[in-house]
Amino acid sequence: MNENILGIVAGILTSVSMIPQLVKVIKEKNVKDLSWIMILILISGLSLWVWYGILKNELPIILSNAFAVLVNLSLLICYIAFRKKS
Amino acid sequence: MNENILGIVAGILTSVSMIPQLVKVIKEKNVKDLSWIMILILISGLSLWVWYGILKNELPIILSNAFAVLVNLSLLICYIAFRKKS
Repeated sequence: MNENILGIVAGILTSVSMIPQLVKVIKEKNVKDLSWIMILILISGLSLWVWYGILKNELPIILSNAFAVLVNLSLLICYIAFRKKS
Repeated sequence: MNENILGIVAGILTSVSMIPQLVKVIKEKNVKDLSWIMILILISGLSLWVWYGILKNELPIILSNAFAVLVNLSLLICYIAFRKKS
């Protein structure tokens, strides 16, 4: 299989798997089971992957990790917004 | 920064961020909030990333995604083991 197609399919699958968590948090407005330290570590790691993809000039890595950064930034914003309720 | 060091740091951060979920499930033996479809999609995507890393001969991608596959396979096993209790 072409490497780029493989990377894009892999990126779509790992990105899609993060959506249910975000949808759940937005619906239930409940973040007591989430760890903000974990979200921060994840955002740092994903951002480094974007940087790695830029250095290596690999579009599948840049796109899938940039998308994952956006999803997890949204999670972090939800965490800050809903934290008092929990 | 050297690309490989960058990739290894990125891989360690994104891998470490998955541990709290596994620890939580093993401690609480409760999986009712987990989606097995999400875990299966994630394992498929991560396995494709390992394959991508092998094709591109990039060790940071192979190692971090192989580790993530192991963590999520453990989650899936916990899911199957604790599912009846939930």
